[in-house]
Amino acid sequence: DIIKTYFQPLAKKFAGSLSLIDDAALLNVGKNHQVVITNDILTAGVHFFEDDPADFVARKGLRVNLSDIAAMGAEPVTYLLALRLPSPADHRWLKLFSSGLQHDQDRYGIFLSGGDTVSTPGPLSISITMLGQIQANRALRRSTARSGDDIWVSGNIGDASVALEVLKGTINVDNLETRKYLLERFHLPEPRLELGNALIGIASSVTDISDGLVADLNNICEASGVGAIIQDKRIPLSKWIVSQILETKQLDLPDIISGGGDYELVFTAPPRYGNDIQHLYKKLELRISKVGTIVNDDS
Amino acid sequence: DIIKTYFQPLAKKFAGSLSLIDDAALLNVGKNHQVVITNDILTAGVHFFEDDPADFVARKGLRVNLSDIAAMGAEPVTYLLALRLPSPADHRWLKLFSSGLQHDQDRYGIFLSGGDTVSTPGPLSISITMLGQIQANRALRRSTARSGDDIWVSGNIGDASVALEVLKGTINVDNLETRKYLLERFHLPEPRLELGNALIGIASSVTDISDGLVADLNNICEASGVGAIIQDKRIPLSKWIVSQILETKQLDLPDIISGGGDYELVFTAPPRYGNDIQHLYKKLELRISKVGTIVNDDS
Repeated sequence: DIIKTYFQPLAKKFAGSLSLIDDAALLNVGKNHQVVITNDILTAGVHFFEDDPADFVARKGLRVNLSDIAAMGAEPVTYLLALRLPSPADHRWLKLFSSGLQHDQDRYGIFLSGGDTVSTPGPLSISITMLGQIQANRALRRSTARSGDDIWVSGNIGDASVALEVLKGTINVDNLETRKYLLERFHLPEPRLELGNALIGIASSVTDISDGLVADLNNICEASGVGAIIQDKRIPLSKWIVSQILETKQLDLPDIISGGGDYELVFTAPPRYGNDIQHLYKKLELRISKVGTIVNDDS
Repeated sequence: DIIKTYFQPLAKKFAGSLSLIDDAALLNVGKNHQVVITNDILTAGVHFFEDDPADFVARKGLRVNLSDIAAMGAEPVTYLLALRLPSPADHRWLKLFSSGLQHDQDRYGIFLSGGDTVSTPGPLSISITMLGQIQANRALRRSTARSGDDIWVSGNIGDASVALEVLKGTINVDNLETRKYLLERFHLPEPRLELGNALIGIASSVTDISDGLVADLNNICEASGVGAIIQDKRIPLSKWIVSQILETKQLDLPDIISGGGDYELVFTAPPRYGNDIQHLYKKLELRISKVGTIVNDDS
């Protein structure tokens, strides 16, 4: 609401802003290239717990930004880090934090290239600006879904929101293997960079699932002026969630699938690309599930 | 120190990071273009006063970033805004803040293209990432000053630090015209974009004066492996500061010139460019003063 009222008017004359409705912005450079730019804030007590391991915080900070780059189909290159640190600086925390950055830099082939570090009387807070690149006019968008397109999602939905309930202690998971799986999905979401890139030429629209499947699909629908019909039973859940959460009735399906933080991709594609998408499933060894259909907005 | 210990190692394999010692980073795009990227944080109570007018805060946030773009000789294009807002949102503040952004967007021909807005239990804080563009291998740097170069500064030095003392009430300025001049220099520093761009092909090194003439010139010296000799009497001061601060002995020269916040440019150039620089003085209607000489580090 704040964005719509105060900030969209500041973006409207710049085509590359995509009216602030997409996962990232595009900057034309020369005739053949676009730079993809995104920014996310993580604040202690809001987006992560104060006592979360610093290396996990660092890696999650990178990954939520990488997920935006993935949703555009682009290749990540470099990032800037704006760090607000409570005073005095906690060097043990900083050492672990920078080791986490190094770990995921190596994993994703990206590098730090700038930023700012200030001390703050408030909570520790991290803002990352990630830059990627893509050939001109190839970036995947939210606003281009069409009636009749299939709706697909990658991976499993709901793991991160169930993990959050586990961390808050509102639900109980005794099985250690399940606990480990869920917490890793929460702390270290996997940005779907390969999938995003492979969807160029196939998907009609893409976004990443940061706020929840329904909310993020709704962003696609609003941006594209279309509606969506989802078949609940097709939404992919991990076997752990089915057997230990759903069947034990600790949470019901709407609770599980409405939470965010999975950082999977939800995308639309004309039905003729069904086989190509099945092929990606095998090639990337990543579950990709058809969950519904795009319909006219008035239907 | 934190940057050197923890973050420079994360940047060292990426040439465009400029080892985090420059005003901005460079991203190669295609063969002929580079994107210039910089990031600065402004936090209430640290970088501005809680009750500063929101439009001034917005404009200063843009201008300190534009100043980094100017110091690279680049042309600004677009920016991302990461905003941490105390809850509940103050819509009067937001309206004024966005009007300030609009004002300086129009002035400098830039546009908002993305960002993130979160609520925070801490103080209001603004992080801006500014992107500019420049032809490949034309960007001005800090690390390229050479012994024998002249040292130049634009505008007047010390206005912002004197203004800060006025705002804190530690010194007294009765003259309303002087007060207005000083506060405008503090709240609305003028990024020297035209000068920065004109210095391509002339200056051997450039940086902007954010932390103070001595500190920022020292950054050039460290990055270039050289020393500097400054002639105090040549440092350009506003007539207000000479007559109402220096001559009344409210502050002495070292205090005045060691403060930051002027966002003028300090640059070096071989003596043969003296005439070109005098010409820029007239063309840009901007005071440009020779204040010293670059010397060997061991001298």
